[in-house]
Amino acid sequence: MNLDMIYLDMIYLDHAATTPVKPEALQAAWPWLTSDFGNPSSSHELGHRSAVALEQARATVAKFFNVRASEVTFTSGGTESDNLAIIGLALANPRGKHIVSARTEHEAVLSALDFLERMHDFEISWLELDEFGQVLNFETALRPDTTLVSLMIANNEIGTVHDIAHLTNEAHKVGALFHTDAVQAVGWIDLDVKKLGVDALSISGHKFGAPKGSGVLILRAGAKAEPLIHGGGQESGLRSGTENVAWAVAIATALELLAPVDEEAQRVARLRDEFIQKVQQLVPSAKLTGHPINRSPNIASFTLQGVSGEAVLLELERKNVIVSSGSACAAGSDEPSHVLVAIGVETEIAQTAIRFSLAHETTADQLDAAAHALAESVANFI
Amino acid sequence: MNLDMIYLDMIYLDHAATTPVKPEALQAAWPWLTSDFGNPSSSHELGHRSAVALEQARATVAKFFNVRASEVTFTSGGTESDNLAIIGLALANPRGKHIVSARTEHEAVLSALDFLERMHDFEISWLELDEFGQVLNFETALRPDTTLVSLMIANNEIGTVHDIAHLTNEAHKVGALFHTDAVQAVGWIDLDVKKLGVDALSISGHKFGAPKGSGVLILRAGAKAEPLIHGGGQESGLRSGTENVAWAVAIATALELLAPVDEEAQRVARLRDEFIQKVQQLVPSAKLTGHPINRSPNIASFTLQGVSGEAVLLELERKNVIVSSGSACAAGSDEPSHVLVAIGVETEIAQTAIRFSLAHETTADQLDAAAHALAESVANFI
Repeated sequence: MNLDMIYLDMIYLDHAATTPVKPEALQAAWPWLTSDFGNPSSSHELGHRSAVALEQARATVAKFFNVRASEVTFTSGGTESDNLAIIGLALANPRGKHIVSARTEHEAVLSALDFLERMHDFEISWLELDEFGQVLNFETALRPDTTLVSLMIANNEIGTVHDIAHLTNEAHKVGALFHTDAVQAVGWIDLDVKKLGVDALSISGHKFGAPKGSGVLILRAGAKAEPLIHGGGQESGLRSGTENVAWAVAIATALELLAPVDEEAQRVARLRDEFIQKVQQLVPSAKLTGHPINRSPNIASFTLQGVSGEAVLLELERKNVIVSSGSACAAGSDEPSHVLVAIGVETEIAQTAIRFSLAHETTADQLDAAAHALAESVANFI
Repeated sequence: MNLDMIYLDMIYLDHAATTPVKPEALQAAWPWLTSDFGNPSSSHELGHRSAVALEQARATVAKFFNVRASEVTFTSGGTESDNLAIIGLALANPRGKHIVSARTEHEAVLSALDFLERMHDFEISWLELDEFGQVLNFETALRPDTTLVSLMIANNEIGTVHDIAHLTNEAHKVGALFHTDAVQAVGWIDLDVKKLGVDALSISGHKFGAPKGSGVLILRAGAKAEPLIHGGGQESGLRSGTENVAWAVAIATALELLAPVDEEAQRVARLRDEFIQKVQQLVPSAKLTGHPINRSPNIASFTLQGVSGEAVLLELERKNVIVSSGSACAAGSDEPSHVLVAIGVETEIAQTAIRFSLAHETTADQLDAAAHALAESVANFI
């Protein structure tokens, strides 16, 4: 495998967009892409072996999240997991048609909510947010007919972290279910689902070293959901279709490879803080977006005042520093970041946004080089 | 890759359940799982390369089906493609709430229709079928308020083929849209979508040498569909989520490797017919299920009178012949085949069903050995 080559060539700081597949994850998936190709639903040994691999992967994922294996559903990615949680829970739990969420959520959440509003007459209450993206009015937004709350753990653009355990507790007081999009939190924030207390949690494999096309939804026992994809009844009826055994094994392996977050998150947060300081020192116009302290360790995001984020991205790329101007998730979009707009950043300023997103492998030297490359790039435009 | 080993060890005649991944497909996917890991939505070169690979794969798929690239949507498999077509078209085209289909369809179709009935007040008319699974009353089942027809090209259990071009033409006369589940037809029946005339066509990669977790929906220009999975607007807004570039490349490669069906289908059909004759000669109780002539070249399916299909499957496995007792698609189900029940086979007889499904690589010798193994296996139980 020639992953090393890539790392020699560039300083990749766009891990929140996607990550390289970990060789170990690909290696673990390999047999299920080659000799062991059985359909897990087949009665013969070849099928049975696939079914066993799938259940072993499920047990590994369950252990990571401190849930039961029966609470793990394999999906095709984070967007599907978000949709299955939100639409699935909303349609199967008709105690009310009121949902609480925030406009800083990922497009997958916002668009699933839009679907429920358009097609199923749900009413969405959008939480008030401060300039950092923190929730201001959670308790008062909850109503007796609130069916569901959906709030992410860590924001993908500005890194701001919600106190999910606290918010879930409040939501449960009025009887609402709680879903959290944890796509950006894996490897950075403790995802013990029992501690978080959430009813549903979504992740995407390609954000932490598993392949694109892999995802998981954790759905706690007792929380019923209507499937999005109906058919042969695989995944306990929640997600039909022949199981992608290889990617289930890969995502389980990638989770298993993650270090416990306690020390690791602090270590990377320190690197990131040094990076933020250096950027602000070298580029005085750079303004940190998101909360200065309550933020995921992997995200350093800025607006640059008067310089297009997209132009800086291209300039940085010429210096082999790979970043993002906002999120990669709104395909081919030139719109300013909906997240920045939601926290009150003016459109013109939002278009100067730039995001550096770290991996566990990111080094202080890489970040130092990136800060200097940013300073040089911005200087080009002034 | 050790695919050869598998073929030395066993006579795999369960290709309708799943197929080994073609080494060429895996090889083509490889760069997109390793060095070229960019997110196609990213603005930088690494992302752009992924976007280009995705669009090249789309063009290859479009060429195979004789459609435009904009009519190709990559999905996570056949079940998702069926659901997206059926639920998507039904919800986005509210001219009526009437759908026409048949009880011999795959579970993915039946369960999607059940969802529309349960949650959206659609009315389903089930076509009358003869003992071979052929449609008897198509024209009279159509109504002015028929929104959609969903009928498969080739049945996955009994191989019976519908004349989709003719049926589509009839459906269009009343203004109904036509979806066909072509999952079992790829490589066996001409899938020129312009000739078929259908509005939507679903396929699953793992049935013809692409990996599990890959699929395509062909949706003709002008046919609007509501997405199942909402989010960043990938796949022209029809299927959001970071694209599984590697599997898009793999499914395109596997399609490209298929020989033109004309002569190839006839060649395999001859092999299969010789096999059917041999089975009926060696096992007088074996009764062919499905149409004797209008059937897909790859399926030879029987009931065995008084002998459990599952027991014969296990006995055949001891002789290294891998088959299926019905379909593998209803996960872990002991129910008799819903297809056989739908064409009037008694429950007790349906439980004696056994299916041999061929690949292009299947040889006359393998089939000869399989027929003898079947005769010996059945003899054990009499």
